[in-house]
Order: sequence, then C-alpha cells, then structure tokens
Amino acid sequence: MTAFASIADFEVALARPRNIDGEAQEAARARQMTLTKPAGSLGRLEDIAIFFAGWQSRARPRLDRARAAIFAGNHGVAVHGVSAFPSTVTAQMVANFEAGGAAINALSAAAGLELKIVALDLDRPTADFTAGPAMTPAECLDALNAGAAVVDERIDMIVLGEMGIANSTAAAALCARSFGGTAADWVGPGTGIDTEGVARKAEVVERAVAVHAHAGRSAFETLRRVGGRETAAIAGAAVRARQLGVPVLLDGFICCAAIAPLASDNPAIADHCIAGHCSAEPGHVLLLEKLGLDPLLSLGMRLGEGSGAAVAAGVVRASLAAHDRMATFAEAAVSASL
Amino acid sequence: MTAFASIADFEVALARPRNIDGEAQEAARARQMTLTKPAGSLGRLEDIAIFFAGWQSRARPRLDRARAAIFAGNHGVAVHGVSAFPSTVTAQMVANFEAGGAAINALSAAAGLELKIVALDLDRPTADFTAGPAMTPAECLDALNAGAAVVDERIDMIVLGEMGIANSTAAAALCARSFGGTAADWVGPGTGIDTEGVARKAEVVERAVAVHAHAGRSAFETLRRVGGRETAAIAGAAVRARQLGVPVLLDGFICCAAIAPLASDNPAIADHCIAGHCSAEPGHVLLLEKLGLDPLLSLGMRLGEGSGAAVAAGVVRASLAAHDRMATFAEAAVSASL
Repeated sequence: MTAFASIADFEVALARPRNIDGEAQEAARARQMTLTKPAGSLGRLEDIAIFFAGWQSRARPRLDRARAAIFAGNHGVAVHGVSAFPSTVTAQMVANFEAGGAAINALSAAAGLELKIVALDLDRPTADFTAGPAMTPAECLDALNAGAAVVDERIDMIVLGEMGIANSTAAAALCARSFGGTAADWVGPGTGIDTEGVARKAEVVERAVAVHAHAGRSAFETLRRVGGRETAAIAGAAVRARQLGVPVLLDGFICCAAIAPLASDNPAIADHCIAGHCSAEPGHVLLLEKLGLDPLLSLGMRLGEGSGAAVAAGVVRASLAAHDRMATFAEAAVSASL
Repeated sequence: MTAFASIADFEVALARPRNIDGEAQEAARARQMTLTKPAGSLGRLEDIAIFFAGWQSRARPRLDRARAAIFAGNHGVAVHGVSAFPSTVTAQMVANFEAGGAAINALSAAAGLELKIVALDLDRPTADFTAGPAMTPAECLDALNAGAAVVDERIDMIVLGEMGIANSTAAAALCARSFGGTAADWVGPGTGIDTEGVARKAEVVERAVAVHAHAGRSAFETLRRVGGRETAAIAGAAVRARQLGVPVLLDGFICCAAIAPLASDNPAIADHCIAGHCSAEPGHVLLLEKLGLDPLLSLGMRLGEGSGAAVAAGVVRASLAAHDRMATFAEAAVSASL
C-alpha cells in the first residue's frame, strides 16, 4: 500500500492540500484567552498550541505519539569532493543510529520521540546530477513513497531529518532550482569543508542548474533531477502528513531544501510545517524566508539527522502541556484584571 | 541554618565567588571532540554541556535533580497604579501554583523539574520605594536567605523565577540604579499595562532613582532600597548557587533584574548563570547585554514565574543527554573525516 500510486497522485496531493481546521483553531485560541496568565504572555508557545489544534482538528492537541523519521541516502555527486567526509560514512552513521549512539538517539529520547531510521539504497547512490538526472522517475516515486510510509493517522507529530554525505550540495541545487539566486547563495561548509571546497560546491551546483535548465520545473522533476533519495523521502513524508493532518517539525537546511520544490509549486504546502531551528549553514536563513517559516530555535546547530528539530520538539511539548494542563481564571479563582 | 549570617557574609560571597573547574571543563570539551558528529556541529548544545561540566566539576554533567524555585512578593509601589492587575493576584497565583494550575506547573513538569514555591510575606508588602527604602536591612537579609535556602549541593541545576504584582517596576528601578540609563530604557508594559501606564511607571522609577541617589550603591543597598522580597531572594539563590557550584537558569526581565545589582558590584557573578530566554519585555535585551548573557530562547514570552527558563531547561536536558549518551567515533567505528 503506497501513498502515491503514480506521479500524478503525488502531484494532486501537492496541488490540492488539506486545509487547517479553523474551528478547532478558534476553539484553542479561545481556550488560551481563559488560562491563568496575561493574554498573549506565553508568546510563541500559544501560537504553537493553536497551530497544532488546527492541524490535529482538536481544541486540545496532544503529543502522545510523536515520531522522528531520519532518511539516509548516498549521492553520485560526492565524486566531486564536495564533503569533508567519505560516502562510506552514511552507512556507518546509519549503523550508529541503529546502535543508539548518534546525537539523534539521545535527542529523540530526551524529547520523547519514537525514532524511525530509513536507509534508502545506500549501496546504490543517485547518479551524478551534473551529468543528468539524479534519479529515474520510478526511483524518485519510490523515495517519495518511502517517505510517506513513515506517516500514519495515529501519530500526533512527525519530525523529519536526514543523513547523507554530499547532500548539502544536493540541497543547494534544490534551492537554486526552486527559488533562483546564485549557487553562492545556497552553498556553505556543510559538515565542515574548507573555503576551496565551498567554491567547488558552488561550481557543481552551477553546472547542475545549467544542465537541467531546460527540463520541466515541477516539484517532482526538481526532486528527481538534483535531489537525493532522502530529500525526496522528506518531501513525500511532508505531503503525506498534510493529507493526514499530521503537523510536521522540520530540521535544518537540507531538510527544508527538500520542501523548496514543493513550495515553489504550491506556496501553501508548508502551512502544516514548523521550522524547528535555524541552522548555522548560511543558506538556511534565506531558505526559511522563501518558505515563510520562522524557526523556533537558533542554537548554531548544523548537524542534520533531525537533531535541531528534536530539540525543538521539547518546545512543542512545553507548549501543548501549558495549553492542556493550565487552569482557567474561573477554575483557579484568579482575578483576570484590574 | 541560614546561608548568610550577616550582610557582610553575603558581601564576601559576592566579592569572592567560586571559580569554574577548568579541568572538568576541558575534559568535557575533549569528550565533545570524540563524539560521532562533525566538531562543533551541535553548536550551543556543546557549549552548555561544557559549561555544566565546569560548574558541576564533572566531565559528564548530569541533570538528575533539577529544581525550579519561584519566589513571590508584594510591592508597596503598586499603589501608584503601575500594573494591569491588583496586588491580590499575587496570592491568588501562589494558590494556583500550589494547586498545580499555572503555566509553571505544566512547564516544569514537562521539563522534569521539581517545583518549589516560596511566598514571601505576601500580607506584608515592601514599603513604597518612592518614599524610602523598600525593605529594612533585616528584611532584605531575610529575603536573601529565603532565596539561598532553595539551593543545596544535591541539585544539578536551579531554575529561578518570580511572581509579584508591580514587580516589573521594581525590576526597572533595580536596572536603572545598577546600570544607569533613563527610566524609559527599563520600563515596559509588564503584564500588559497601556502606554499611559508605562509613562506612569517611568515617572515612578525616576522618582525612586532620585530619592535613593545619595544612598550607598552596594548590591545589598540597591536590592533593599528599590527591589522586592522576591528579587532579593533570587539574588540570594544565585549567590548561594555559585558557592555550591550549582548552575543557574535565569528567567526573563524581572529575574535578570535581580542579578543586575550583583553584576554591578562584581561583573563575574553571573558566570554560572545561563539566560533561559529573551523576554518580550523591551528592557530585557539591554539588560542581557549589560549582564553579558546570550539567551537560549527567544519565543516572545513575557509571563515570568520561571516559564521561559523552564522551557529552556528542556534545551539543557537535550544538551546533556547528547553529551552523555552519544558514542565516540572509536566506539561506533565511524570514519572521523576524509
């Protein structure tokens, strides 16, 4: 049972997304006004609770089951020396995720998230996208469905993250193709490559944009031409979450770059998404602006693997706890004002 | 058994604070370099773990017992109509804290903090500090000790917060007396007073600064002359925490204003403190700058009662979890770089 039986299926889901439940949202807003605090004094925590109410279609949203899904993929473009680490590290880190030793293991446990690791054909890297499309249409559709498969109606939130040596180069290409700008706007040190390496990344991205300039500009075409399996999977998971009314917490630059082609097709597609944090990767600020997302945290993180979003999940948890458990002025017999 | 037997005792603790354990700090920094992630990629999370290691004097700091202490006090200066709420609300909110219905109850539970509520002579407001000192020396020393009493060697972190109708006016006066500037630099809407009310607050603060202009400028004199019992208690708790090597997580504007007189006497006194968040109260940005503190969160919160710091405690928990539980490159057999 795949979510998207065809490319057309995916494109319909992207073009005609579910709307927020305005009634649940209003009920949550009304509840916030009755809680024992000056109106608005919990700031963003209030907004998050109202947002979750709207997408979960309940005035008192919950976070009983929250899942982090981390997608891993390998990239043909790695041959150009665009990463500080060799491609073998992708599988090594997946093994580390599975053994419980990575940052995301500690951080998802701290935030009460169940963790799902999805390694996508690591022994079959995508094709080098400076020479042609990274994936065939069938490969890209498979990746979209692998992403969609981590989302179901029983979860209250999905946290999305990625791992894949060289994928900040693919991410920069996704951004450049979706939102324009120069390659230099979108490339950065990633896991820690030097200045020369960043220049090499920019060249690779420029070449990719040129090679695919005359191809179709749909989200699907962009995802398959210059993305990776893990970024396509994130896009598939986000669109599926929208169909099911599951709020999404996005991680950093690469995770958000997976949303860029979707937003280029339909600017409203990220309405059910919260940006967990602003990464130290320089392109993230511009990307968040293009996506219209205001990140919850800004802690100078740049690890990926869902780590920033997992920390932000703690803020979501705090928000929903306050919304659900606080007493009203009437219940607590507190005077509402002078 | 009080922490500070005399004013002189408090002043010695303030003048000769404990130093950070540089060895533990270095051991934590070295551990961070071995964990399975690009060096520095967890950003502020790495700094927090190293900071906690230094103050807790252990390479792998812990957060088994973390306490939030919320101090409440009433203010003579409330007679000038400087708050959107009547003074009776202080006791009503304390009852709400004790019944478990306030934001801090939900937020401290979400962050795994034990919660201690300390109501300080609510039926005996401080004196109106536009006419004379808010407290006698004995009253202020009592409040410092009430604060110090919430800290002991067995806790791994103390989160400080406050509640007290009219205390953002006292906080503004503490800041103006500690760091100079105009009253307008430090006053704001607090719980939500209108423009006229803010102007009234500024007048009250100006008058207070003038009335006490020729009095001694020690931290103790400032705390007792223009502070409240809850702000003196926060100051006492922070100094006591420093003596015991307990890291402090500060809440918003009023909580940080309690530290201002200490920092004016000894700029190094807040070295064991982390600012949990930047409040929406306008004076907080300048106050954080004067204290040399870079807030963890900026979520537009302005409730007080330790709420912002309690949310930030989740970030601290994430930081220490990653530091403690992640595998090293050697343990996980991951290649460290190309």
